[in-house]
Amino acid sequence: MTQRRTLRIAVIGTGKMGADHVRRIDQVISGARVSAVVDLDAERAKQLAAGIEGCTGSGDPAAAMATGEVDAVLIASPGPAHEEALLTAFAHDLPVLCEKPLTPDAASALRVMEAEQKLGHRLVQVGFMRRYDAEYLKLKALLDSGHLGRTLMMHNQHRNASSPPGFTNAMLINDSVVHEMDVTRWLLGQEITAVTVLRPRPSSNAPAGMDDPQLVLLETDGGVVVDVEINVNCGFGYQVKAEAVCERGTARIGTKQSLVTDTAGRWGGTIAQDFVERFADAYDREVQAWVDATRRGEVTGPSVWDGYAAAAVCEAGVRAQREGGRIGVEMVERPAFYR
Amino acid sequence: MTQRRTLRIAVIGTGKMGADHVRRIDQVISGARVSAVVDLDAERAKQLAAGIEGCTGSGDPAAAMATGEVDAVLIASPGPAHEEALLTAFAHDLPVLCEKPLTPDAASALRVMEAEQKLGHRLVQVGFMRRYDAEYLKLKALLDSGHLGRTLMMHNQHRNASSPPGFTNAMLINDSVVHEMDVTRWLLGQEITAVTVLRPRPSSNAPAGMDDPQLVLLETDGGVVVDVEINVNCGFGYQVKAEAVCERGTARIGTKQSLVTDTAGRWGGTIAQDFVERFADAYDREVQAWVDATRRGEVTGPSVWDGYAAAAVCEAGVRAQREGGRIGVEMVERPAFYR
Amino acid sequence: MTQRRTLRIAVIGTGKMGADHVRRIDQVISGARVSAVVDLDAERAKQLAAGIEGCTGSGDPAAAMATGEVDAVLIASPGPAHEEALLTAFAHDLPVLCEKPLTPDAASALRVMEAEQKLGHRLVQVGFMRRYDAEYLKLKALLDSGHLGRTLMMHNQHRNASSPPGFTNAMLINDSVVHEMDVTRWLLGQEITAVTVLRPRPSSNAPAGMDDPQLVLLETDGGVVVDVEINVNCGFGYQVKAEAVCERGTARIGTKQSLVTDTAGRWGGTIAQDFVERFADAYDREVQAWVDATRRGEVTGPSVWDGYAAAAVCEAGVRAQREGGRIGVEMVERPAFYR
Amino acid sequence: MTQRRTLRIAVIGTGKMGADHVRRIDQVISGARVSAVVDLDAERAKQLAAGIEGCTGSGDPAAAMATGEVDAVLIASPGPAHEEALLTAFAHDLPVLCEKPLTPDAASALRVMEAEQKLGHRLVQVGFMRRYDAEYLKLKALLDSGHLGRTLMMHNQHRNASSPPGFTNAMLINDSVVHEMDVTRWLLGQEITAVTVLRPRPSSNAPAGMDDPQLVLLETDGGVVVDVEINVNCGFGYQVKAEAVCERGTARIGTKQSLVTDTAGRWGGTIAQDFVERFADAYDREVQAWVDATRRGEVTGPSVWDGYAAAAVCEAGVRAQREGGRIGVEMVERPAFYR
Repeated sequence: MTQRRTLRIAVIGTGKMGADHVRRIDQVISGARVSAVVDLDAERAKQLAAGIEGCTGSGDPAAAMATGEVDAVLIASPGPAHEEALLTAFAHDLPVLCEKPLTPDAASALRVMEAEQKLGHRLVQVGFMRRYDAEYLKLKALLDSGHLGRTLMMHNQHRNASSPPGFTNAMLINDSVVHEMDVTRWLLGQEITAVTVLRPRPSSNAPAGMDDPQLVLLETDGGVVVDVEINVNCGFGYQVKAEAVCERGTARIGTKQSLVTDTAGRWGGTIAQDFVERFADAYDREVQAWVDATRRGEVTGPSVWDGYAAAAVCEAGVRAQREGGRIGVEMVERPAFYR
Repeated sequence: MTQRRTLRIAVIGTGKMGADHVRRIDQVISGARVSAVVDLDAERAKQLAAGIEGCTGSGDPAAAMATGEVDAVLIASPGPAHEEALLTAFAHDLPVLCEKPLTPDAASALRVMEAEQKLGHRLVQVGFMRRYDAEYLKLKALLDSGHLGRTLMMHNQHRNASSPPGFTNAMLINDSVVHEMDVTRWLLGQEITAVTVLRPRPSSNAPAGMDDPQLVLLETDGGVVVDVEINVNCGFGYQVKAEAVCERGTARIGTKQSLVTDTAGRWGGTIAQDFVERFADAYDREVQAWVDATRRGEVTGPSVWDGYAAAAVCEAGVRAQREGGRIGVEMVERPAFYR
Repeated sequence: MTQRRTLRIAVIGTGKMGADHVRRIDQVISGARVSAVVDLDAERAKQLAAGIEGCTGSGDPAAAMATGEVDAVLIASPGPAHEEALLTAFAHDLPVLCEKPLTPDAASALRVMEAEQKLGHRLVQVGFMRRYDAEYLKLKALLDSGHLGRTLMMHNQHRNASSPPGFTNAMLINDSVVHEMDVTRWLLGQEITAVTVLRPRPSSNAPAGMDDPQLVLLETDGGVVVDVEINVNCGFGYQVKAEAVCERGTARIGTKQSLVTDTAGRWGGTIAQDFVERFADAYDREVQAWVDATRRGEVTGPSVWDGYAAAAVCEAGVRAQREGGRIGVEMVERPAFYR
Repeated sequence: MTQRRTLRIAVIGTGKMGADHVRRIDQVISGARVSAVVDLDAERAKQLAAGIEGCTGSGDPAAAMATGEVDAVLIASPGPAHEEALLTAFAHDLPVLCEKPLTPDAASALRVMEAEQKLGHRLVQVGFMRRYDAEYLKLKALLDSGHLGRTLMMHNQHRNASSPPGFTNAMLINDSVVHEMDVTRWLLGQEITAVTVLRPRPSSNAPAGMDDPQLVLLETDGGVVVDVEINVNCGFGYQVKAEAVCERGTARIGTKQSLVTDTAGRWGGTIAQDFVERFADAYDREVQAWVDATRRGEVTGPSVWDGYAAAAVCEAGVRAQREGGRIGVEMVERPAFYR
């Protein structure tokens, strides 16, 4: 067996996530290099590319994918630009790692799903990176082992120190709870069928016009009830905790204690301040898994179906938030292609 | 100041709880003794009384309270017998520690409340013993201190290894969740205004006809949303956990680690197997607090209003469980007498 | 069976410990009352006695024990006064709870031991209250169960926020490490045969002339090696931790987590600030156990032999501290009377 | 700035560690590739090389380093072969990552140290990988920050499920405790001046002729006392724990809780079963740090001085173990070259 050659990757979008992926592929990931950086702001793309040997910067994704110098594409541009970039990659038969959301809504996700099915083979891995987090992986392995019996409930806490400017109630669902929606589907292998949202009196930390925190309730087609505390102005740090309540026990993650001090009348440790600190390893593992699979000629990880399902559940979530009460999730039947 | 004399207590009811209270007053509590034991089964009462110096056993509560040999009454008979015993104690102006439930429903609780108000002074302490648990007391002190700001949400887990024979869905609310209902009111100083119940597909451990576990959602007049996992056939032990989510942090109890072992590839500790093990200290502290207050001529602790409120919330809970959806709680206005 | 009558106790010494025991017997302990309070400062004794019904205050222990109004004696006077008080109690055949140290040195402890043996029955329980702490009791039960196999090593940490004025290197052994010496003997059922003391460069918190912290190493006749960090100016609180390292696992206590908060970038809880907070329950349990045994006509708990052994090991500890190196412990053979 | 080219590494030795490093550089490390694999068993080297593009296998380290196809050398052969391989690398001015031990004893380490000094620049990074463990790094950052004041003591536990066949008392020091010796020096920035070893009665799990566990005491020139429980047949897993006791608090690592379950009457989690599981990330980080520094033209990390110091302390440790008592450490003065 001879070694496969180094994968040449075009990174589209150079915002916070895109720039971090460029750094990651350049300095952390084995077996891949950044061969093209693309951004609407072509100057910014060229500047980023200048620090990397054999890498070009430009402003047009389609042109970059047409050069023949690209083996795979990482899409990290804003959500509304994803559909066009994905279809272009499909035209060149290029494997894609697409940051979440796949597209901004279920209808557009459905179009991408149909286009991929027409190709006859999968090309897309969607960027739900929690599936690559060591703790979630351990939890999934334990649930899959059957040692604890069937899962009955899940409790989740998702907390940010503070929300960025411009964050809205809808983004609470679409940008934050979407992660719990995806891990619920992935951990349980079940689809979500209804969403209910309860809103306590908002924290005085919440920006005007935002109801924070909220309690989001998910119901699955396997009869599991899932509660999610979403709390994006908690003030004290970034926390993602999950507990699966099963027939023969419970299992929880997110309470890591790596350095514990006793000092000044208190014992304890620090809380991570953002998702980069909490999930750095998960991002590394996600991109390495994508590079490794691509070099083997395979597509693994979250699929376009997962991206579509997330969009459909989010739409129900935003309605539940706005209208109150329990909102059913509407989805097309799962194509055999994605089973 | 001279020492007050030893309090002579009549214990009514000699079931599991009553017999345990007899033992407690006889062997653990300072400043009190059991002077009378009463049970419908007078033979059983006499047998229990025989082991205690200066204690008589009999079958008629009213007669026992009329002897003049009793300074205070502890009612531990079945709920339906409470109203009559309470009114008899009122007639003799005897302080009462009444095991929960105060009475079986809100209407009868209301009658007791009106009778006590007519006396012009409180006589009753209701047996919500979690208010005397060291961990709950610490949590309340922290919330009351204001260090964490206003409480926004509460998460609770209430788990039993298995439910006793004959346990029903309604008892899940009336006997189990009633504790979380009371501590919610006590910790927050707020009334509960609505109840919603979600039922996952039942555990295979649940007896036929019982939906176990359930997720009970409480809303308060202060805008706090409270979730309660009630899970009475969890198989692994007895657990009561609570987390208050506040504006400036969270606080949780119920995760005590007193003895931790590393052995056979695992670290960890044991889980209590029943409430006697978990709350033994709380029962001792509850009864001692009642004895101490009574010797000082005071009535403290959970009031008849608290017993009534619990009954009203339970009635809404059982309806929410049966009918689905969100059920508002109906209560009379709080009398100034109980403020 | 008729109930035994209330035990009338004379408390000798009304310093911090003595006054606390008076309060404890008066308000917490079931089945006993304080009938006499004695202190060199008779005025202080009278003042304390005034608040308790049927209790007299005076300045002469021997006179108090001779009144016939006393069933048992609790000695909480300074150590040098213990021998005389014990011998007087022996003369009246009164059961005694004697605060540690039994006497100030091994020679005087030996004299008390011989006097008790001449009586032909035990009268003394020595106040090593850690044996009544819930955590130590669990640890002992686990070690005794044999589940973890033979104990090989023990690690201990004994920390105080700060040492009281006048505390010396010798008191570090005699007043502090003496507790680990006693629990080592009790947990393992083995005698200590040698002591070594290592002294790091002292903390800047240590008072002039005191070497704090120190590492004390104990070796037992069962081949167990025990290390004790004694650290009485640690600044952050009072902590007592112990870990038994056994053939099939380890077990540790002292890391209780009763209330855990997430706030201001940190998770964790508070550390107790003194032994009263940490061991309040142990003191209550110790005195109640003594009262209960005495009312049954029995003597249980730590014996005069335990008090003597502690004194002998302390003497070796102070020598090891002063002279460096490993110092063997010298003890008389254990009398059959104490087996 | 243009990107530096991919580093070509020769790996010498293809035992467990060597083969794992080959896999690591091939699949995990960014910016480097394996260009040569060398083993006394040339067939084995060729077999391993066959799976890697552009990689040759051979039996002669000196020949492999002379080809001009190698930019850096990773030495993972048995300890006695290190000195010659190091001197050969020096002759070709090749940067080296040398697995511990640097050489088998202090005298040979001193020769390597003198040879490196003659070059006038550092070439060697010694493989003390704990310095790259995330938890140890956090502990060092905290100690260096000065928040807890000066370190006074350290407590360490180093446990293996079982020792491999042929493991001896001397290897307990040279292969196991050597890690605590190195991290003590690194965490504190102090040299070790004396070693004492206490041996409890051996566990029944210990192989015949081995005294396991042992308590190793280190003293530093900064007055810190360090205890190390070395326990290589503990049966239950692999554990490395450390606690620094400082003037204003303590800090501990090694108690990670990533997945916690409540089941069958117990709460808790699993214990790692070997160092590969516990320190996988540390190995990755160590080699990546070496590759990155080498590509920048720098030598960082543990130096030949560190390798020499470890050898000198180990020699004292083995003597302390054999002879009993406290053995001083003898070392040459630290050359300015290594400051």
